[in-house]
Amino acid sequence: MNSPLFNIRVVCVRTLYGGNLGSICRAMRNCGLDQLVLVNPNPDLDQVELRKMSMRSLPVYENRVEVASLEEAVADCGAVAMTSGVDGFYRDHGTTPRQAAPDLLELATHGPVAVVFGPEDKGLSLDELTLATHLLRIPSHPEYSSLNLSQAVMVVAHELFVASGIFEPSEESTPPANHQALERMYACWRQSLTDIEFCPEEKMDHMMRGWRRILSRGTLNENDVKILMGIARQASWAAHHPGNPGKPKNRKRI
Amino acid sequence: MNSPLFNIRVVCVRTLYGGNLGSICRAMRNCGLDQLVLVNPNPDLDQVELRKMSMRSLPVYENRVEVASLEEAVADCGAVAMTSGVDGFYRDHGTTPRQAAPDLLELATHGPVAVVFGPEDKGLSLDELTLATHLLRIPSHPEYSSLNLSQAVMVVAHELFVASGIFEPSEESTPPANHQALERMYACWRQSLTDIEFCPEEKMDHMMRGWRRILSRGTLNENDVKILMGIARQASWAAHHPGNPGKPKNRKRI
Repeated sequence: MNSPLFNIRVVCVRTLYGGNLGSICRAMRNCGLDQLVLVNPNPDLDQVELRKMSMRSLPVYENRVEVASLEEAVADCGAVAMTSGVDGFYRDHGTTPRQAAPDLLELATHGPVAVVFGPEDKGLSLDELTLATHLLRIPSHPEYSSLNLSQAVMVVAHELFVASGIFEPSEESTPPANHQALERMYACWRQSLTDIEFCPEEKMDHMMRGWRRILSRGTLNENDVKILMGIARQASWAAHHPGNPGKPKNRKRI
Repeated sequence: MNSPLFNIRVVCVRTLYGGNLGSICRAMRNCGLDQLVLVNPNPDLDQVELRKMSMRSLPVYENRVEVASLEEAVADCGAVAMTSGVDGFYRDHGTTPRQAAPDLLELATHGPVAVVFGPEDKGLSLDELTLATHLLRIPSHPEYSSLNLSQAVMVVAHELFVASGIFEPSEESTPPANHQALERMYACWRQSLTDIEFCPEEKMDHMMRGWRRILSRGTLNENDVKILMGIARQASWAAHHPGNPGKPKNRKRI
């Protein structure tokens, strides 16, 4: 799949914890990102935690690039998005990752784009934030707005991935039932409710409206209608064969 | 803040790792959720990891409810959303958390709503998924679609939080500059480019169109215009006071 996601680089500045880096690798692969650049990571990263949390995405870490400065990490990038958990002076023009995602993906069709995350304890400095072309503010609750580093990467990666349109939700394999099939099914149910003597004829219209309301809350597909029709027919059949209903027509009882 | 988020319950089934539970607590507080229900958690949860990862959100864990069955955890819930990383039979009517969020929030205005997450190793069983009123499929890349448990909670919580509308992105504190202020600023720049002899008069219109294009890529606010105006005026002043520009008008040199 050729996608602008391949031009998006996750840049982690002065990361302290191996577990977070491992989680970041996994989050990246979950969202179709694979370029990891580390700026001055903790030299004593916990490698055991890193391996444990990265699971099958350790290759993202193994293929990382390490550089000594943020400038070096983003030098060739046509856009540099930085995340900051703090609002404030010179940061009030920030946007959410959802707002920025289409623009970042469009820029990534022209060349590398960086998304930069600061260290766990302090975040990015004001000097570093100055280098940003896009300031990202992840929506979070004012009572506890500070996200774990790998969770912040997950949210930004998720927003980019969803905006990329790569993910296609599974579709129902069976087409929706058409009007005629639905009405045939409701006619069967009306007959069945009569056969099982569920309610007197004068209340049947009222009851069928209730039944239609229940079944109209979602779109019924052809398989759904087959199941519903089968139940109605079997109830009718059973009402006419008390004690030993078996199956209608020539189907054997299982 | 009164919000339907208060009626949303995070239900974790047979969770194995304390670190994940700690991260879940933090993700919940980041997104305005605080009801945690554990169904048969690992009795040997790593409490050190749990405390380390939960940071200031340990109260979410301390206020948890533990129950012995999923049925018990969701008995009073008007909607039961379950996450599954697997597509397949009876799961192809799943929706993404973003699609389901408005409906879940609406249902949460009427009473408790559960969002259920399975264990790290196997996810929820087909029998458990059968209890769902909403099946959620988190968008993820087909090459590595399995999310870490706490990352899955983060994505769903983020989608619910964003849909709740609680988060308001910071607004620029300075209003956008109006047309008149912008034109005054451009007139200053035109004069300044003449004063510093940046280009001959016959090319000035062309140059000013380029300058307008650069400055029109974003909305300039009143402070931006003040800065731009100040630079233009100072350049003009400096051009008329070679060797010792100082400041225009009666401002002293700093």
